[in-house]
Amino acid sequence: MKNRSVAAWIDSFLAERKLRANSIIITVYGDSIASHGGSVWLGSFIRLVESLGLNQRMVRTSVFRLAKEKWLVSEQIGRKSFYSLTASGRRRFEHAHRRIYDEPVTQWEGGWQIALITSGKLNHSQRDGLRKDLLWEGFGLIAPGVLAHPSDSSASLIEILHENEVHDLVVVMQARTLGALSSRPLQELVRDCWNLETIAQDYQRFIKRFHPVMRSLKTAHALDPEQCFVVRTLLMHEFRRVLLRDPQLPPQLLPKDWPGETARRMCRDLYSLTQCGAEQYLMDVLETVEGQLPPPSEDFFRRFGGVLAKDCRQDAA
Amino acid sequence: MKNRSVAAWIDSFLAERKLRANSIIITVYGDSIASHGGSVWLGSFIRLVESLGLNQRMVRTSVFRLAKEKWLVSEQIGRKSFYSLTASGRRRFEHAHRRIYDEPVTQWEGGWQIALITSGKLNHSQRDGLRKDLLWEGFGLIAPGVLAHPSDSSASLIEILHENEVHDLVVVMQARTLGALSSRPLQELVRDCWNLETIAQDYQRFIKRFHPVMRSLKTAHALDPEQCFVVRTLLMHEFRRVLLRDPQLPPQLLPKDWPGETARRMCRDLYSLTQCGAEQYLMDVLETVEGQLPPPSEDFFRRFGGVLAKDCRQDAA
Repeated sequence: MKNRSVAAWIDSFLAERKLRANSIIITVYGDSIASHGGSVWLGSFIRLVESLGLNQRMVRTSVFRLAKEKWLVSEQIGRKSFYSLTASGRRRFEHAHRRIYDEPVTQWEGGWQIALITSGKLNHSQRDGLRKDLLWEGFGLIAPGVLAHPSDSSASLIEILHENEVHDLVVVMQARTLGALSSRPLQELVRDCWNLETIAQDYQRFIKRFHPVMRSLKTAHALDPEQCFVVRTLLMHEFRRVLLRDPQLPPQLLPKDWPGETARRMCRDLYSLTQCGAEQYLMDVLETVEGQLPPPSEDFFRRFGGVLAKDCRQDAA
Repeated sequence: MKNRSVAAWIDSFLAERKLRANSIIITVYGDSIASHGGSVWLGSFIRLVESLGLNQRMVRTSVFRLAKEKWLVSEQIGRKSFYSLTASGRRRFEHAHRRIYDEPVTQWEGGWQIALITSGKLNHSQRDGLRKDLLWEGFGLIAPGVLAHPSDSSASLIEILHENEVHDLVVVMQARTLGALSSRPLQELVRDCWNLETIAQDYQRFIKRFHPVMRSLKTAHALDPEQCFVVRTLLMHEFRRVLLRDPQLPPQLLPKDWPGETARRMCRDLYSLTQCGAEQYLMDVLETVEGQLPPPSEDFFRRFGGVLAKDCRQDAA
C-alpha cells in the first residue's frame, strides 16, 4: 500500500528535477540490473521505469541511443527484445561503482599521485583525454600542466594512463609532502585547486532533499515495494551525481564542516531501508530470457560496507 | 725553479681570462685560506696573489669591498691589517665546498624533490629569492611554478627553505617516478628543463684548457711551489665556475657522453699533483697574528674523497 507522504515526495521530486531519460536509465541499469545478471526484457523494463515518470516512447528512444553508445546491446528472441549491458558498459560502471558503493578510504599517509601532462610526447587529443579523465577522477591542477591527487595508491592513475594508452609517454610521480599532512600551505593548495565549496553545497542540497522521505519511510507502518524502488533509484541517481564530482580528498585536507560523510551515511541508511522492498519489486516486475530475474550477485551484498540484509523475509518478520 | 712551459701556460691563461680581482680573492680565501684558520696579514696576502696578476692597489680595493659585503672582516694590530673570513662568509663557502670537494652522489634511487612556489603565502620577494636559490642548487622548472630536482635527499631543499624563512609557507614534496628511472618521457623532461648542453660545453672547455698544464706538470723534473699555488688556484677558480652551474643530475638522466666525471677526475688529479707545492708556498708566504700559518685542518684532507697526501716530505722523498 502506497504511503501518501512518500508519494507526494516522489511527485514533487520528479516535477522539480526533470530527469533525463538516458541518465535515469543508466542509473537503473547500474544500480538495479547489473547486479541481477545485467539483461532484461524491454517490455518488463518499460513497466519498471513507468514509476519514474518515463513512458514507453521515451524508453524505446533511450535504449536505442544507449545501444549506439555501446552501453547496451539488444537481442531479439521471438517477438521480445532483451537489452543487456555490454562489456564496456560494465567496465564503465565498475569504476563508478567502486566510488559509489565502497567505503571511502579515510586513512591517508600523506601520499600524492602526480602526472606532468605538459611533458613527453602527448599530442593534443591525448593530452585532453588524459586531462579530462584525471580531473574526473578527482585530480586537481596544482600548477599549469601538473595534475595531482592526495592519495597513497597509484592504482587509479596507472589505470587511467593505460586506458588512455599514454603510460609510456607521461612523467608520473608518487610523492609525499614534507612536514605535517595538513599544514597551512597544503590547506591553501587544496582551497585553490579544488572547487570544494560547490561540492559541499551539492551535498547539503542532497541531504536536505532526502531528509523528508527518510523520515516518512522510517515512521511508515509498512513499505511499498514500488515506492522503495523509486526512492532508491532517485537516491542513487542524485548521490552519484554529487559523489562523482567529489575529488575524495583525505579528511586531513577537507574543511572542518565537510558534509560528505553525513551524505554518505544518509545514502547508506536510506539504501538499507529500501533494499528489501526495491529488490522485491525488481523480482516481481522484471523478466529475463530464462524467465525470472536471477537473485542479486555476491557483490551486491558488499555495497556500503556490507550493511545490506542477506535475507529479507527474516528482515520483514 | 720555474718550469717554462707551465709559466707560459699561466701567462696565456691570465692574459686570456682577465680574472676579476674580487672573484679570484674569493677563490683564494675559499680554497687556500679557509682551511688554514681563515685569517691572514694583508701584506702577506698581497705578496701571495701577486703571482695571479693582482697588484697591491687592486687587492686593497677588493678586500675593502669584500668586507662591506660581509665576506671578510678586518682587524688592525699595530701597523698591520689582518683579514679574516666572517661567519657568514664561511657558511657561504661551506655550501659551495660540499659541491666542489665532496665526491658527487652517483647512486640514485629515483627520488625527486619538488617545491610548489606558486602556492602558499609567499610574497613577491620571497618567491624570487627561493626561486633563485633553488635554480642555483640545480633545481629545474618542470612546470610553471614547480621546481624539482632528481635527488633522493631532501636535505638541500630543507636547508634552502629555512635559509629563506619560507619552510612553513611552501608545499614541498618528495617524489618517486613510477616506472623506469630513465624512461623516455623522463629523458625529455630533463632535456626540456635543464640547459645541459651549455654546461657540457663548459666542462669540455675546462678539460681542454687544463690538459696542457697537467701534462707539463706530470713530466716536470721538480715542481715549483709558486707555480703549484697559481695552477691550483686557477684550476679551482675555473672548476667552481662550471660546477656550480651544473645541476648535478643523476647518471641515469644524463646524456651518454656527459663530460662532468672526466672534468672532476682531471680536477682531482691536478689538485693532488700541485698539493704539496701549493701548501708549501702558502706556509712560506702567508703570515697570521700568531706568526706562522697553522697547518691545514682535518677537513682539507677529506677533499676529493681523501686522495691528498698527509705527509708531503714523505711524498717528496
